[in-house]
Amino acid sequence: MGVTSDRVEYVCRYGGNGTTTSVNVSTAAEVTMEIHSVCLPPKESTFQKLKHRLSEIFFPDDPLYRFKDQTWCKKLVLGLQFLFPILQWGSHYDLNLFKCDVVSGLTIASLAIPQGISYAQLANLPPIIGLYSSFVPPLMYSLLGSSRHLAVGPVSIASLVMGTMLSEKVSPVQHPTLYLKLAFTATFFAGLFQASLGFLRLGFVIDFLSKATLVGFMAGAAIIVSLQQLKGLLGIVHFTTKMQLIPVLTSVFHHTKEWSWETIVMGFSFLLLLLTTRHISMKKPKLFWISAAAPLTSVIFSTLLVFLIKSKVHGISIIGHLQKGLNPTSTNMLYFNGQFLALAIKTGIVTGILSLTEGIAVGRTFASLKNYQVDGNKEMMAIGLMNMASSCTSCYVTTGSFSRSAVNYNAGAQTAVSNIVLAGTVLVTLLFLMPLFYYTPNVILAAIIITAVIGLIDYKAAYKLWKVDKLDFLACICSFFGVLFISVPLGLGIAVGVSVFKILLHVTRPNTLVLGNIPATQIYQSLNRYKEASRVPSFLILAIDSPIYFANSTYLQERLLRWVREEEERIKANHESTLKCIIIDMTSVTAIDTSGIDMVCELKKMLDKRSLELVLVNPVGSVMEKMHRSNILGTNSLFLTVGEAVADISASWKPQP
Amino acid sequence: MGVTSDRVEYVCRYGGNGTTTSVNVSTAAEVTMEIHSVCLPPKESTFQKLKHRLSEIFFPDDPLYRFKDQTWCKKLVLGLQFLFPILQWGSHYDLNLFKCDVVSGLTIASLAIPQGISYAQLANLPPIIGLYSSFVPPLMYSLLGSSRHLAVGPVSIASLVMGTMLSEKVSPVQHPTLYLKLAFTATFFAGLFQASLGFLRLGFVIDFLSKATLVGFMAGAAIIVSLQQLKGLLGIVHFTTKMQLIPVLTSVFHHTKEWSWETIVMGFSFLLLLLTTRHISMKKPKLFWISAAAPLTSVIFSTLLVFLIKSKVHGISIIGHLQKGLNPTSTNMLYFNGQFLALAIKTGIVTGILSLTEGIAVGRTFASLKNYQVDGNKEMMAIGLMNMASSCTSCYVTTGSFSRSAVNYNAGAQTAVSNIVLAGTVLVTLLFLMPLFYYTPNVILAAIIITAVIGLIDYKAAYKLWKVDKLDFLACICSFFGVLFISVPLGLGIAVGVSVFKILLHVTRPNTLVLGNIPATQIYQSLNRYKEASRVPSFLILAIDSPIYFANSTYLQERLLRWVREEEERIKANHESTLKCIIIDMTSVTAIDTSGIDMVCELKKMLDKRSLELVLVNPVGSVMEKMHRSNILGTNSLFLTVGEAVADISASWKPQP
Repeated sequence: MGVTSDRVEYVCRYGGNGTTTSVNVSTAAEVTMEIHSVCLPPKESTFQKLKHRLSEIFFPDDPLYRFKDQTWCKKLVLGLQFLFPILQWGSHYDLNLFKCDVVSGLTIASLAIPQGISYAQLANLPPIIGLYSSFVPPLMYSLLGSSRHLAVGPVSIASLVMGTMLSEKVSPVQHPTLYLKLAFTATFFAGLFQASLGFLRLGFVIDFLSKATLVGFMAGAAIIVSLQQLKGLLGIVHFTTKMQLIPVLTSVFHHTKEWSWETIVMGFSFLLLLLTTRHISMKKPKLFWISAAAPLTSVIFSTLLVFLIKSKVHGISIIGHLQKGLNPTSTNMLYFNGQFLALAIKTGIVTGILSLTEGIAVGRTFASLKNYQVDGNKEMMAIGLMNMASSCTSCYVTTGSFSRSAVNYNAGAQTAVSNIVLAGTVLVTLLFLMPLFYYTPNVILAAIIITAVIGLIDYKAAYKLWKVDKLDFLACICSFFGVLFISVPLGLGIAVGVSVFKILLHVTRPNTLVLGNIPATQIYQSLNRYKEASRVPSFLILAIDSPIYFANSTYLQERLLRWVREEEERIKANHESTLKCIIIDMTSVTAIDTSGIDMVCELKKMLDKRSLELVLVNPVGSVMEKMHRSNILGTNSLFLTVGEAVADISASWKPQP
Repeated sequence: MGVTSDRVEYVCRYGGNGTTTSVNVSTAAEVTMEIHSVCLPPKESTFQKLKHRLSEIFFPDDPLYRFKDQTWCKKLVLGLQFLFPILQWGSHYDLNLFKCDVVSGLTIASLAIPQGISYAQLANLPPIIGLYSSFVPPLMYSLLGSSRHLAVGPVSIASLVMGTMLSEKVSPVQHPTLYLKLAFTATFFAGLFQASLGFLRLGFVIDFLSKATLVGFMAGAAIIVSLQQLKGLLGIVHFTTKMQLIPVLTSVFHHTKEWSWETIVMGFSFLLLLLTTRHISMKKPKLFWISAAAPLTSVIFSTLLVFLIKSKVHGISIIGHLQKGLNPTSTNMLYFNGQFLALAIKTGIVTGILSLTEGIAVGRTFASLKNYQVDGNKEMMAIGLMNMASSCTSCYVTTGSFSRSAVNYNAGAQTAVSNIVLAGTVLVTLLFLMPLFYYTPNVILAAIIITAVIGLIDYKAAYKLWKVDKLDFLACICSFFGVLFISVPLGLGIAVGVSVFKILLHVTRPNTLVLGNIPATQIYQSLNRYKEASRVPSFLILAIDSPIYFANSTYLQERLLRWVREEEERIKANHESTLKCIIIDMTSVTAIDTSGIDMVCELKKMLDKRSLELVLVNPVGSVMEKMHRSNILGTNSLFLTVGEAVADISASWKPQP
């Protein structure tokens, strides 16, 4: 034996006041290193494992940690604060905060009122519903929500999707009451779905709408919405109810006779104005108020203009009479049986998930800017309850809007009180100012919508996707064209499918690497990547970069055998020492299933037949446990590090001549 | 600085004749180790990457490696051998091999003839189709196939599924010709689908039917098939065409008046006989011929019995007249337009994928027993072409049958010539022996089917699944009950869904571990698993056990921040030195997408705000590349090993007071 009993100890000692990397070495020239055995993870019963697994799935953020070791009374207070975050920050609320909130609340109100009316039109609903939806939901949210910057109200995407999905089956012109009923019912189901996701802690479902998917989806939706606005912008009366690119364009150019030049002139001038203000505010974020005030200013000016020229010009369509007064209850409008119930549920789920995605993403964005945390599941319950309650007070789907929340943030909002101020302003409008909107031209609403949605086309993000990850870009493109040419839900479905396919592809065809030793170290790294790494004679060291599942076990078996074959050919060609041992680094094999276990057994058998030793290195806890339970490997085939495996096995070869 | 310029070199030197693990150490007490930089992978253009990726997806086994560096002429020979493996082994064929093949061929013929007739009945087809299907396909396969032990012919699962799917829409009793047309057409599409999968090298699609799914599916199908046989076994005339458990049982007990005691007595006696022979052969594999010969013996005895008592007993239904002669062509029976085309295609795809799964699995099993390799994609093309050709010669879907291949293997088959012998025997039967089957009672076919399918209930495998992997067991149970109570395609669909869900669950909620140093080494392992591992003061070392994707980036961010929070709380409680640096071991992060990149950025920002340093260790090539392209980390936040990171960072803290 060339191996002495002396052994190197490279101790890393850490003093309390700093660190000392010290190495105590016995002076032997040839030594072996200590071989560490691979542990099984601590024993757990099936029940404990299930409990642990479920708590990781449903309570990864440990939402109840604040309740630990508290008195009964304190727990009650914390529980109430958990349900109504207003109780938490309300006690510290003071005049300074209130001043900020009033300013930001008034600013978003000036944006929310015209947007509310416009988005309601996008959903083929009466304009007044948009205002109703800017009153109750912000109030509800300020009680329940945990984001301080979210400005709640109708949003373009959810309005668009609701409008599309409902009007494909029910005409809002021929059956206005049924349409309205379906819209409220869809809102109710959207809320129910959102609240259930939050309550059942299934919030991670929305993570499956990846950023790549959303970039494509938003751009597609923005184009569709903008094209739809050509109806208002050109003054066309007979317009298609379909949403896809081709029917809309056909409709535009088939009705050239209906184009009204007065509308066109007015529309494009205001569109230009709005786009210019938007551009200014984007260049200088401090001037956010210019683009924030522009919609209301445009509405006021265009209304005055129409009022002044009304006797001379007749081609411009106006909003007309809006009823004064607060939200009427709409519990009697909810529609829980009949042939369109499935439609309402489907619409509710799709709009629910979309509005949730926007609301949560916006909430998280601004929370991270101000360094506080938003609990996704709790936020979903807040938004869901808000929508359920709103559906009973003549509102349709609402959520945190990206554009308005940005304005809110820039205007210095400090707490959800800005939403209360917003609601107050809308209240005043609803009670006293409704007749002022009589002469507001519809074309201005179209211009406001286009300006709002054009910001959703994020070509820079798409370019970044292309640069960083081609498959993400593919998902983006799929959702873009899917939405544009097929339909909103199907486009989204395709994009989610592509994203999931990407994950499965990675699992089905994982990387396998050949490792080599970096000289003068115990580090083993990819030969292909680290040029200084070198092969260890008689060993083939492979790493599998993925869990081993049914979906890849056949592939991996073939691929590993191909590596062995290629290595043997290489050795033959270079007249090197024969291959004796295959080491598989299992560090990245983070899971294994029964097919994977069978694969390892099979591989061992096949290598045995060729007189090659198979050694596994550093299997993770769960993999180790399953291998142990199926008794496939002796302890002498398991090592903690590649270095120890190489040292121990080559030492064991020594005694042979 | 407490760090001297001396450094330890622990060199592992490998001599040509063995190994010497030697350690050369300078005698300094306090030394630093050399810090290795993390490399980018070698540069590749997008096209090269795509090429590499596609070749890994479609040609993982490098099927053309034999063609490399060969002459033009040799390439042609190899190409022909690739297409027709018979050319490869045909040249070495000799009399000894032939003797073995004749014995095994005759043995499987004695099994294949009664099974062929029975399985055709299972598919609601005339019995003669089963014999036709045992003649042409084995001949085709012996030319094209690369497995030496596969015995080709009709199989129970594919027959059952075809029978179910077609008879749900078209009654085989009322429209026998249309039914036959659809069966041939489905066979054609099954073959086309199989050949395309092989040709497009998409063979990995069948890997998605995991072993767990198949165990459940087979057991469910076996029970359904057995229950269906109660029709024959009890002599019931009016029987449901549905396949689910409940309608079948209802049908059995609603027609008790039709039960015929003669049939029951005969059926159960032969069933007992067949099961006994099966049991004997299972206990002693050498006596395989007992169970192999039993079906034919039973057919002969029962036919004789019925012939002898035919004047006295009338309750036993018999096969009746079978036409003599070879397979007629059926090209005019293929059905390429009309309302049932979609049904034929769907049936073709489902039966195609199921028969492929069985054929490939059986081929691989026996190949690994005899240590040769079966190329999955090539085999798919062979089976596909065989089915396409067979559909033109009055055959329905065939593949390698598990039971017959096992008999073939045990009977000593050496090459695909045993299939030719089988075809020859069937040929003789078709030409001369058909009248002998006139008095064969249908009840014996039912008994043969039950005996064959009962072996598909693999409760031991199910128990093993339960023991090793609970989620695999769930997939198994889902496919079992899905097939039993819903329908075959839906049951399979649910099981595949569960399997894919399992993969996604693992990706959505990956493990995160806290690592500690194993004293006296550079090894960092899970604190939870390795009791000897200890925390490094001022550091929190985390490992992420999964790729970082859109589906888990939010979860991971929250989970990592929770680890930091918990560590800070622990430190506070124990009055330890404050946390300064978070090290994330990225070894197992085998892929990252744009959402993942964003998450890492976000995390870095959040930790920066808390004055915590973020360091990443050993990112794999593709992850490193993407991080580099999005410029998120400086080189001083990247280390090759945890040990080097700890040493270097703690050294950098030293100068501070």
